[in-house]
Amino acid sequence: MRFFSDNAAAAHPRVIEAIVASNAVDAAYDGDAWSERLDGAFSELFETEVRTFWVTTGTAANCLALAALCPPYRGIICHKDAHIEVDEAGAPGFFTGGAKLMLLDGPGAKVTPEAVAAECDRIRKDVHQVQPAAVSITNATEYGLVYRAAEVAALGRLAKERGLALHMDGARFANALATTGERPADVTWRAGVEAMSFGFVKNGGLNAEALVLFRTELADEIAVRRKRAGHLLSKGRMLAAQILALLEDGLWLDNARAANAAARVLGEAGGNRLIYPVEANEVFLKVGPEEAASLIAQGYDFYDWGPGEIRLVTSWDQKAEDVERLAAALVAL
Amino acid sequence: MRFFSDNAAAAHPRVIEAIVASNAVDAAYDGDAWSERLDGAFSELFETEVRTFWVTTGTAANCLALAALCPPYRGIICHKDAHIEVDEAGAPGFFTGGAKLMLLDGPGAKVTPEAVAAECDRIRKDVHQVQPAAVSITNATEYGLVYRAAEVAALGRLAKERGLALHMDGARFANALATTGERPADVTWRAGVEAMSFGFVKNGGLNAEALVLFRTELADEIAVRRKRAGHLLSKGRMLAAQILALLEDGLWLDNARAANAAARVLGEAGGNRLIYPVEANEVFLKVGPEEAASLIAQGYDFYDWGPGEIRLVTSWDQKAEDVERLAAALVAL
Amino acid sequence: MRFFSDNAAAAHPRVIEAIVASNAVDAAYDGDAWSERLDGAFSELFETEVRTFWVTTGTAANCLALAALCPPYRGIICHKDAHIEVDEAGAPGFFTGGAKLMLLDGPGAKVTPEAVAAECDRIRKDVHQVQPAAVSITNATEYGLVYRAAEVAALGRLAKERGLALHMDGARFANALATTGERPADVTWRAGVEAMSFGFVKNGGLNAEALVLFRTELADEIAVRRKRAGHLLSKGRMLAAQILALLEDGLWLDNARAANAAARVLGEAGGNRLIYPVEANEVFLKVGPEEAASLIAQGYDFYDWGPGEIRLVTSWDQKAEDVERLAAALVAL
Amino acid sequence: MRFFSDNAAAAHPRVIEAIVASNAVDAAYDGDAWSERLDGAFSELFETEVRTFWVTTGTAANCLALAALCPPYRGIICHKDAHIEVDEAGAPGFFTGGAKLMLLDGPGAKVTPEAVAAECDRIRKDVHQVQPAAVSITNATEYGLVYRAAEVAALGRLAKERGLALHMDGARFANALATTGERPADVTWRAGVEAMSFGFVKNGGLNAEALVLFRTELADEIAVRRKRAGHLLSKGRMLAAQILALLEDGLWLDNARAANAAARVLGEAGGNRLIYPVEANEVFLKVGPEEAASLIAQGYDFYDWGPGEIRLVTSWDQKAEDVERLAAALVAL
Repeated sequence: MRFFSDNAAAAHPRVIEAIVASNAVDAAYDGDAWSERLDGAFSELFETEVRTFWVTTGTAANCLALAALCPPYRGIICHKDAHIEVDEAGAPGFFTGGAKLMLLDGPGAKVTPEAVAAECDRIRKDVHQVQPAAVSITNATEYGLVYRAAEVAALGRLAKERGLALHMDGARFANALATTGERPADVTWRAGVEAMSFGFVKNGGLNAEALVLFRTELADEIAVRRKRAGHLLSKGRMLAAQILALLEDGLWLDNARAANAAARVLGEAGGNRLIYPVEANEVFLKVGPEEAASLIAQGYDFYDWGPGEIRLVTSWDQKAEDVERLAAALVAL
Repeated sequence: MRFFSDNAAAAHPRVIEAIVASNAVDAAYDGDAWSERLDGAFSELFETEVRTFWVTTGTAANCLALAALCPPYRGIICHKDAHIEVDEAGAPGFFTGGAKLMLLDGPGAKVTPEAVAAECDRIRKDVHQVQPAAVSITNATEYGLVYRAAEVAALGRLAKERGLALHMDGARFANALATTGERPADVTWRAGVEAMSFGFVKNGGLNAEALVLFRTELADEIAVRRKRAGHLLSKGRMLAAQILALLEDGLWLDNARAANAAARVLGEAGGNRLIYPVEANEVFLKVGPEEAASLIAQGYDFYDWGPGEIRLVTSWDQKAEDVERLAAALVAL
Repeated sequence: MRFFSDNAAAAHPRVIEAIVASNAVDAAYDGDAWSERLDGAFSELFETEVRTFWVTTGTAANCLALAALCPPYRGIICHKDAHIEVDEAGAPGFFTGGAKLMLLDGPGAKVTPEAVAAECDRIRKDVHQVQPAAVSITNATEYGLVYRAAEVAALGRLAKERGLALHMDGARFANALATTGERPADVTWRAGVEAMSFGFVKNGGLNAEALVLFRTELADEIAVRRKRAGHLLSKGRMLAAQILALLEDGLWLDNARAANAAARVLGEAGGNRLIYPVEANEVFLKVGPEEAASLIAQGYDFYDWGPGEIRLVTSWDQKAEDVERLAAALVAL
Repeated sequence: MRFFSDNAAAAHPRVIEAIVASNAVDAAYDGDAWSERLDGAFSELFETEVRTFWVTTGTAANCLALAALCPPYRGIICHKDAHIEVDEAGAPGFFTGGAKLMLLDGPGAKVTPEAVAAECDRIRKDVHQVQPAAVSITNATEYGLVYRAAEVAALGRLAKERGLALHMDGARFANALATTGERPADVTWRAGVEAMSFGFVKNGGLNAEALVLFRTELADEIAVRRKRAGHLLSKGRMLAAQILALLEDGLWLDNARAANAAARVLGEAGGNRLIYPVEANEVFLKVGPEEAASLIAQGYDFYDWGPGEIRLVTSWDQKAEDVERLAAALVAL
């Protein structure tokens, strides 16, 4: 039973239907009706005019945005456990042309205004040291913690004061909002976020992510950078169609709620083994090597997360019985 | 009726089926059964051990390969009308880190050994001038001309003599082979090609292209570069599955034959309007502005290709009646 | 006798004196009194507020400026014989992060508004083709031709219309002005030039060139880029001191006048062998292989410039007797 | 009195003489007799065949070497206080095309085999995480500590085991050797170092550093990269001449001994204020803000090195009386 990643889940049937339905259409690149509806759909969702670009990976969505927000000779402040630092093979360095990631510490991969300010203060204001240009946060974080709108707004105010852009890696943005119930606008542009990746692949999509630009004047640059990076697919309609399918009738939120609910069940079963509170769809537990081996023997597939720790990730399509059985197994350890 | 690009055609039903069939599988990135079968399938096709990487665009397939074949401080010799020069938004410069495209002239976008040798000879052998590291050819070319194995082999020999790698942009490789009937091995690695992009999107695929490495020792580098460029999709099985569907029972060649046959019909109708012989699925014709307007008025959609010239491209799914009607319209001009 | 390059001449004695005089000073990087006087000296020369950066090569001066004027995903229009294209080892690609040089043809390496406009018009305005961001001209050109202020102004107007920045490679700017007698301001910022390299090394300097910014808001970026490229010398005073020595009492113009005068003598001797009019300190002549061999045998050192052509370059320190003797030898051919 | 940096000291008179003596020579770039002698001089010094390249900054020397040792998609392990990380404005990212610096902790900016091994072990061996390609150490370190040959050899062995190149930033290599009395060969290539920057600017040079390649097969690449980065000066003879002047009769070691001796005097005066042992020409002391103010008031110029700490750096030309007076002032605090 898959608990190792929401990355590996199936696409939702409505997504598959949308791909099939968009197939037989004479249009190339993003010249199709689905792609043309994207800006409108996201503008409505975010209650402001945005520009949106489909891409096929979160890495592309994050790094195209960062390249537009940070010149090659400056830096991006992020958590040392951020996906862009740890799991994107140096993509920020490639897309930006050599900008530096400036790493913060802190529990749960959460970025705080205090840590950002301290990092800025630590840097001499001269040409010898790389100066930051942006802050990037992940919501929900790599440890499944969620930023509330007020937290992002505090970061946004600080970023503005310091002349920094604010970027959000929203690979699990749906999971975050499903928990807080906050409005998308409040936790993003109203809080100072200028660009974000809006994840669908971990949430019922097949291969589509959205790069959402609140600083719409960067749209032309992003469009060129997307093409130049080989991310302008010739039948992009299949990406737009699946995003629209997930936005329709709030399917994206329904999927995220399902995944989060499963995680909560596991979190409760985990009890005081929990390393972080369960705020999205990830559960980090203190589980010894023998205990882990026992779970594996029972057919559960998950990540070893360093000595004595495991990571469980739930997906939109997680079967209730699998979740309950795993919960029982955790209790029984 | 669409004659503007094979890029815009539908995916073949068997491709769609393969995508659907690969959906509900617990595997991430290229850890699935379909992806794992790719190397074998292409090794069989090419009668030698190759390494294969799915990506979603020809630009990615071309430029990842070029980045492995050419360091940032050298150059890639190609035709001035090559897709990598004209239509990839500078992607070679991005992926290689600033390598230079060195442009050849010549009819039909075809690269000749004489032109390559002349370009090499023109360059002083010192540190002030950029030295070439690779030659890139497109087969079929951007004007629908086809390289025979002997032609590629002549380029391969020259490349070897001059210490240059040889790359093939095979966006329409299927169309080329459908015409010549040559073996894939003969027109590629046996002729000196070290890496190629093998196109599927223009030939019944939805969004999958293959980067085929004959110099297999570059595989680890390519794998990292693919991830770093945001081209390692988390549900890559959908890409592998569609490629395998097209390779099965020679569907890729059937599709290309269908497209080529349609082009031949148009080419014959074009008569002495033809600018280049029709060797693949592209037809370039001398058609005056008023004549072009008349075709457009009749519902035909195609590219204006400079003053007094048009480009027609046929696809695997081109309806015979549309082709015949257009042929008649061309004759009637 | 050296006629192969002004690059190889000695530094002027006043330059050497200035270097020696600036040696024993406790200051690092550009924190010294000489460096601090640069902006003022050039602002006075150009009759407007400019920002100036010493570097040690024309390549650095050109490419740092181009990197600030052109993002990685756009292009720089220049002549196909421009130094940045032909003789800087791909440095523009390195400094800009992969921007493309877009090459114009035309006699004498001169860029015309017509050629720039044609190049712009040739490019489709879409994301598939690289869009230009800047025009770069060389004054005096690589063939020793000089732009008058009105010519630059025509280019500047066109550049503005098309949204392009205008850059001048002024490796032989002194030679150009020594010929025209025009004001530095008229042929640069008043004509639309935004940044230039101002050459000293070919004109009596030892190793200092100046990057002059008329768009002063780019100064902070250039300062960082200079450091990041390893071009912020720790004892930069020796560069500033030699530039100031050359600016003092118009030594730079005197040196250029001396070199130009020598070239004129050779040009007159060349008679109808002349390929281009002699407008600066370079003389291109039709000289057959046997004739060239005879000159070499007489001790003259110069460049073979392709079949049947030679290039003579005169320097500030060219001895009158050497020039006269070579002139006689040319007449005697 | 200057104690803030050896960067700011005067060039040695013999260096100035050498520059003057090399001025009036007809040779461009590195085609002069001085440049041609460099390889031989360093090969003799290092008791093996090396290839040497003059450049004008340590940043250029370090980063050109690192670019040849580490591809854009991998990383360089170094100390978090290394000059390449802290004080080169992100130059490694620029020169390598986006490689990552992987930072180690540890006292005195010293890199240990244990720390390198732990960093390597921490990295998952997959395409998602950046893999290291090189280790860079600074000798003497940024805190004035010196690696003995045996220490470097231990790092060299580990590097070899792990498939990593070993680079040495030798900005103060002279100071290190002046202390240990070890042979240059023993602490470099015999210990596994493949490339190094050999500093002269901080040690009596004016503006010349040497990039010394022990892996001589990289020489052609370095030569091109130097040109491409704008670091091939047209009158490079002035750089080669000053390096040769410093190598002659061991002037470089004499200069370093003088600087080190001055540092030892200050270190002894510092007593238990010393933060690190004085092994080269840097002295780090615990000095409170009021004490520091008192030293400043007495005319001493030095760096504030964070709260309650100061850095004193001595130079080859430090006057004995200044040193003694400062030593007395330290004792008197």
